[in-house]
Amino acid sequence: MKKAVCLLSGGMDSTTLAYVAKDLGYEILVLHTRYGQRTEEKEAECAKKIASLLDASEFTEFSLSHLLAFGASSLTDPGMEVHDHDESVQGGIPNTYVPFRNSNLLSIATSYAEARGAEAIFIGVQASDYVGYPDCRPEFVEAFQRVIDLGTSDETNITLMTPFVNMNKTEIVRTGMELGVPYEYTWSCYRSNGPACGTCDSCYYRLEAFKANGIPDPIDYE
Amino acid sequence: MKKAVCLLSGGMDSTTLAYVAKDLGYEILVLHTRYGQRTEEKEAECAKKIASLLDASEFTEFSLSHLLAFGASSLTDPGMEVHDHDESVQGGIPNTYVPFRNSNLLSIATSYAEARGAEAIFIGVQASDYVGYPDCRPEFVEAFQRVIDLGTSDETNITLMTPFVNMNKTEIVRTGMELGVPYEYTWSCYRSNGPACGTCDSCYYRLEAFKANGIPDPIDYE
Repeated sequence: MKKAVCLLSGGMDSTTLAYVAKDLGYEILVLHTRYGQRTEEKEAECAKKIASLLDASEFTEFSLSHLLAFGASSLTDPGMEVHDHDESVQGGIPNTYVPFRNSNLLSIATSYAEARGAEAIFIGVQASDYVGYPDCRPEFVEAFQRVIDLGTSDETNITLMTPFVNMNKTEIVRTGMELGVPYEYTWSCYRSNGPACGTCDSCYYRLEAFKANGIPDPIDYE
Repeated sequence: MKKAVCLLSGGMDSTTLAYVAKDLGYEILVLHTRYGQRTEEKEAECAKKIASLLDASEFTEFSLSHLLAFGASSLTDPGMEVHDHDESVQGGIPNTYVPFRNSNLLSIATSYAEARGAEAIFIGVQASDYVGYPDCRPEFVEAFQRVIDLGTSDETNITLMTPFVNMNKTEIVRTGMELGVPYEYTWSCYRSNGPACGTCDSCYYRLEAFKANGIPDPIDYE
């Protein structure tokens, strides 16, 4: 059975993506990251539940908490405020940006995939909603694929799978509903471990996506 | 004063490179990695000493010990043996290869550089001696530069500095002698925290480099 490393945060996008990978017939190796974000515990709890529902063959957690020490993101720096969606700087990079986070995630995922002989890595990046994050762009993903091809052994063939890169969150939720994704076990809020604030960027886009699909979001909001 | 992040393992190459960066007028931010290798303590001690001699403005340590959990390298897997140089598989990838290590190092270095406004990252990769490590090749470095350009914010400009990529270890030691590098505070052995074994790949190339320069290696060997 072909293996895939799935980067699973426990959020809406990565959970839907792991269900896509399962639907494609992959054996799932879950890789979950802690990096000192405010909602660390809640996300870990959701990721574990989803991994178990997906019958994942491995659940591996790792910490990028050294990114916390660098500061410069409101997700990890207690001295910075997480803005409401309507306070966010339009067109700029949101202060929830963790510098170069996706490259760190993909590097670890590639080490894991190479060590386990997995042939795919699924990562839920998508350019459409968060235009502000440079490391979610399709060009970034293509450039990283080249780094994988050149930086791993010649016998290793690992493909980055990013089917969501050009989808918006409404389309992602629609895909997830078709696959029966249990969204009650996912977490997206940047601010709180529960109930969700409903107003940060992440809650805002999640709620919009459910509304556009005409279905209620099953998690609790303030 | 322009800032540079220097990846400093405490070995011969990265130490020489940090002296090159200092000589080029950079303020030095040292980034040292632990990743569960056998010689972790000795390397950390050397890196700290060198950082202090270079008057580095920051010394940051981080752990990639999750790479240890993946196994598949004799540097980190106690169940695997570190081969002598003359037992190594010729032409293949040495079993000291840590899957995709340099991409992990460069990702963290880039996060650090972006958070601190540094404009250069110095990494002592070199293709000539260790042809077996895919993530030391010039093409890999070029591909990673593109990932940096696309994955960081538009105002960020970070250049990967790899002046050693096409040099051999004899040339590196010659450069270091000219810059007064204190090689007595560096460590290269893969096997032991002291005295050095003298026979693993890393000791072998180091000793050859000193011999070719007609000078004694100041560290202790078995």
